[in-house]
Amino acid sequence: MTKSDTTLFFVPGTCAQAVLIALYEANADFNLKTLSFADNQQRSPEYLAINPKSRVPALVTPQGVLTEVPALLLYVAQTHPQANLAPLNDPFALARMQEFNAYLASTLHISHAHRPRASRWADDEAAQASMRAKVPQNMRDGFAVIENHYLGDKPWVMGDQFTVADGYLYTIAGWLESDAVDIAEFPRVAAHSARMRERASVKKLG
Amino acid sequence: MTKSDTTLFFVPGTCAQAVLIALYEANADFNLKTLSFADNQQRSPEYLAINPKSRVPALVTPQGVLTEVPALLLYVAQTHPQANLAPLNDPFALARMQEFNAYLASTLHISHAHRPRASRWADDEAAQASMRAKVPQNMRDGFAVIENHYLGDKPWVMGDQFTVADGYLYTIAGWLESDAVDIAEFPRVAAHSARMRERASVKKLG
Repeated sequence: MTKSDTTLFFVPGTCAQAVLIALYEANADFNLKTLSFADNQQRSPEYLAINPKSRVPALVTPQGVLTEVPALLLYVAQTHPQANLAPLNDPFALARMQEFNAYLASTLHISHAHRPRASRWADDEAAQASMRAKVPQNMRDGFAVIENHYLGDKPWVMGDQFTVADGYLYTIAGWLESDAVDIAEFPRVAAHSARMRERASVKKLG
Repeated sequence: MTKSDTTLFFVPGTCAQAVLIALYEANADFNLKTLSFADNQQRSPEYLAINPKSRVPALVTPQGVLTEVPALLLYVAQTHPQANLAPLNDPFALARMQEFNAYLASTLHISHAHRPRASRWADDEAAQASMRAKVPQNMRDGFAVIENHYLGDKPWVMGDQFTVADGYLYTIAGWLESDAVDIAEFPRVAAHSARMRERASVKKLG
């Protein structure tokens, strides 16, 4: 553990993994604090003082707390320009990267969340079961857009440049199995995940 | 209609309004094309060639098509720096703005969408009714975070600087009435919407 003044609050397997990958790729100086959802630590008074939304990730910086994955990914890229983790000097390319990250956050993450977190959107168990039943189809539809519209024949989301979007895609693609969707249905996504597993940042996740 | 090479595809009342406000505030040169959801124009072959996700907004630029509101808002700010619509030179402040926009996109817009778009997440009518019933509570919970965590005593989301986040908040706050939530429950949000209605960009929406 370093004495850095930056701390990532993290839960394994969640979307916070995308931010952890970005920080590893940036060779950033930071502390890692792992919360346990099983112990409801995201609802502790200490954590609510950090993030009143009681979610992960949260990044405590010297200037204050930041949340929301797409915002954090851009922040990591902007504050570590030497790591070249985003097309920072090209507004159109940066917008494409942000578009991709926004699609993951607002469509794919939401599609997935209707399985483990259906109770956010309906109180009765029958409705929650109905939502869970539709998750595989929605994940398939969303990953079809990624496979056919966003990923090309280049190795990374943005083409030849590895960016923070790649760790985010890898993280959400990692949820497909639990959503009963075979990643092999999406050959480009599967190849992307295989490339990601060779990176030092992903190996470091353990 | 100008002969600009940039075109916004728009549907009144949708989140695309946030991008239209940003373009007006930037005094941008663009064409406006209004689609009709009633006529299902977002699913026409012509529009699917522009945006295979069949949603609005889409911004056709000389370099290609861009989608997703948070990405488009940052793009408008970055390509019109003279309008000063985002804290472009302060990575932390920019991350706070992006965090706010991401919260609107991934939590508030999603909470709202479970009323008119419940069929995205469950096929049976009873489940959809159950989702619709929970929308007012989820909108209240989300706007409580905006009221108490994000908005302070300054006029705009980012304090004294008007940014693209303000048109986005105004757009989503405009959905509260249809979601059976009284905006007066959130005095800062209500005051913010009143300030927005005085701006030339919002008056131009008609």
